[in-house]
Amino acid sequence: MVLKITNVTVRDVRFPTSVEQHGSDAMHTDPDYSVAYVVLDTDRGEKGYGLTFTLGKGTEIVVCAVEALAPLLIEKSLEEIVGDFRGFYRLLTSDSQLRWIGPEKGVIHLATAAVLNAVWDLWARIEGKPLWKLLVDMEPMQIISCIDFRYITDALTEEEALEILVKAQESKQQREDQMLKEGYPAYNTSCAWLGYSDQLLKKLCTEALNSGWTKFKMKVGANLEDDKRRCGIVRQAIGPQNTLMIDANQRWDVAEAISWVSSLAEFKPLWIEEPTSPDDILGHAAISKALAPLGIGVATGEQCQNRVMFKQFLQASALQFVQIDSCRLGSVNENLAVLLMAHKFRVPVCPHAGGVGLCELVQHIILFDYISVSASLDNRMCEYTDHLHQHFTSPVVICDAHYMPPVDPGYSCEMLESSVQMHQFQKRGGCE
Amino acid sequence: MVLKITNVTVRDVRFPTSVEQHGSDAMHTDPDYSVAYVVLDTDRGEKGYGLTFTLGKGTEIVVCAVEALAPLLIEKSLEEIVGDFRGFYRLLTSDSQLRWIGPEKGVIHLATAAVLNAVWDLWARIEGKPLWKLLVDMEPMQIISCIDFRYITDALTEEEALEILVKAQESKQQREDQMLKEGYPAYNTSCAWLGYSDQLLKKLCTEALNSGWTKFKMKVGANLEDDKRRCGIVRQAIGPQNTLMIDANQRWDVAEAISWVSSLAEFKPLWIEEPTSPDDILGHAAISKALAPLGIGVATGEQCQNRVMFKQFLQASALQFVQIDSCRLGSVNENLAVLLMAHKFRVPVCPHAGGVGLCELVQHIILFDYISVSASLDNRMCEYTDHLHQHFTSPVVICDAHYMPPVDPGYSCEMLESSVQMHQFQKRGGCE
Repeated sequence: MVLKITNVTVRDVRFPTSVEQHGSDAMHTDPDYSVAYVVLDTDRGEKGYGLTFTLGKGTEIVVCAVEALAPLLIEKSLEEIVGDFRGFYRLLTSDSQLRWIGPEKGVIHLATAAVLNAVWDLWARIEGKPLWKLLVDMEPMQIISCIDFRYITDALTEEEALEILVKAQESKQQREDQMLKEGYPAYNTSCAWLGYSDQLLKKLCTEALNSGWTKFKMKVGANLEDDKRRCGIVRQAIGPQNTLMIDANQRWDVAEAISWVSSLAEFKPLWIEEPTSPDDILGHAAISKALAPLGIGVATGEQCQNRVMFKQFLQASALQFVQIDSCRLGSVNENLAVLLMAHKFRVPVCPHAGGVGLCELVQHIILFDYISVSASLDNRMCEYTDHLHQHFTSPVVICDAHYMPPVDPGYSCEMLESSVQMHQFQKRGGCE
Repeated sequence: MVLKITNVTVRDVRFPTSVEQHGSDAMHTDPDYSVAYVVLDTDRGEKGYGLTFTLGKGTEIVVCAVEALAPLLIEKSLEEIVGDFRGFYRLLTSDSQLRWIGPEKGVIHLATAAVLNAVWDLWARIEGKPLWKLLVDMEPMQIISCIDFRYITDALTEEEALEILVKAQESKQQREDQMLKEGYPAYNTSCAWLGYSDQLLKKLCTEALNSGWTKFKMKVGANLEDDKRRCGIVRQAIGPQNTLMIDANQRWDVAEAISWVSSLAEFKPLWIEEPTSPDDILGHAAISKALAPLGIGVATGEQCQNRVMFKQFLQASALQFVQIDSCRLGSVNENLAVLLMAHKFRVPVCPHAGGVGLCELVQHIILFDYISVSASLDNRMCEYTDHLHQHFTSPVVICDAHYMPPVDPGYSCEMLESSVQMHQFQKRGGCE
């Protein structure tokens, strides 16, 4: 009963979100939420679906990169892939010629994410489980065998990782039951995009409060006076007891970040997200140190390129909240490494989501984190935005500001074929 | 007399270097040296040539990325571009949608390098000067105006950069004369690729010595016993007085790097190059610290993705030799920032070269570094390999192991059209 991958197709799908300024921030003023959308065909008819998220222009480049990786999948059996998933991960990320244009970063790594997301989706479908449940049911050693520890052993060894997973086995069932009942806590980013008017801001916050939301994130960084006014509006709308987070999307240099955020301290943000370049570990460490006395943490990760960078952010105490992303890192495999490192360094993981499909995907990973790794909800929550879920066959289910665990088999990556066709950017994408 | 860019073409050009194991190392076992080759057409007939270097597969992805950037150049005048070169750099690197797939790293940044290299080539041609001379003749303020200081002001301010440049003006003419007479010191990497036999190793070292070479780099990292034998062969061939450097091309984790290189200390290498992940600043810092007592420095840079990473390598004392690359960073603009930071942190710059065209390009930058920034040759040298120069219209000139300053106008990027056509990978590259 061997199941082989017989074909890989990839399409460039773009949604015109920039028209209404959904998703606008200080650095990304007109995003068109998009995906490179991958479908794996198999000789038994089952399919695997995967995607990586982009902002519009450039999706065709990621499509081209997926096409470059595709030959590494063709004729491979699922058994062969997941039987040595670490080896397969390394095959994709360490190709002797392709690694030059990365390695493990930017376009080629986004493409790796799309392809591996599809493999995980296929695996979970074949097992008849939602991905989070597939992960939760795996033996600790099998989880370990999916992770490439290259370049992170100075922070986390295989033995340490195994120990963490074994320890969490104890009360796993209890946490799984809890998640099935209550869901995983979420926060809301849909109320306060940078392009929204003051009136809209106030209206959306009030509506969200009425729907049970208690944690809110808003965009800042374009203009300090505007930020003060807007933070005031949101803080007033949500009241002193609820949680406010602010997000600058890399707008500042180090010194500017410290002074700007200090000026917003009166609004009591829990964290400042992406205060500066996503590459600047030491810069984030300096900002973290300066803002700690104000009770403001630093969060980053949606553009953190790989596990080697996350390792250093943790080693340098450069962040207080780890924001993994299901499409920036090398799929579940690399996110597992980050979850385990974050646990070792005692830093909470609060996933990045939003865009197209990011909520659908990352909920699986954070459910696994709670049930099988961290065993804690302290200071933890998963981002949520309310866009574009209608294009998925198994959209997220939010109840009372919590992500309810997916029940359909797979990684929730499958899009409605009608949506894909309606929003396909070009008949022909990629590099041919 | 405005000169406008009217068209951008890009081609995928691959040379079959893997056949004879030229360029082979511990991580790149079968490179086919390649370029994404850019030609800018103008309304006055002059052309600008640029390229970025790749290892074969994946060049089509970079071609696709160049095509995504091309619209940002069309109909722009050269005057408009170089009159606000910082602004133009930021236009290319900070496009609100495209930056998501970088920012400033991997495929999209390699493409930025190719495009901007072509702009610099065009500018130098129009001025009738080789690029190094164009740079040397520019006023300090004009140099500053080409640099995007975003994300590096905590390490180097505009004022500090200006001060460095103004100070070096003093004895500039003397150093220019010296370079025209003597050339810039080079070291040789062509003798000891990992795929070469012991016999070939010995033969090539002996021949190079006879041609005046005194500084040699060899590849290590695949097998420790092999490395000991091969290092012994090379050290014996070149004698105790000449310089040996070793290069592991990212093969190790941090602890392994320290122990492996310690085992090779008896061969007295000046530096270990790329001991681990190019992204691991803190790892390189740990390795630097451990190897310092052995008199071995750490060198890295050919895969250092941007100025933000170089900044941190310098801040963390993670390297003792800065290896800039003309095609990995955002062209001359970003390399200027790195030269100035390296000078401030008193770390010598020893450019990465080889591949296709890297020697041709980077010689201009290091000449400028000596004449207008560092004013020092201590512990400084530029890499040289003897491959593929015959495909360029203005190939490098090496005399007595020194790079002789180019005399033809431009950035030495132009390839022979016959070579391009003979080695073009596909009639149609890129994403259309």
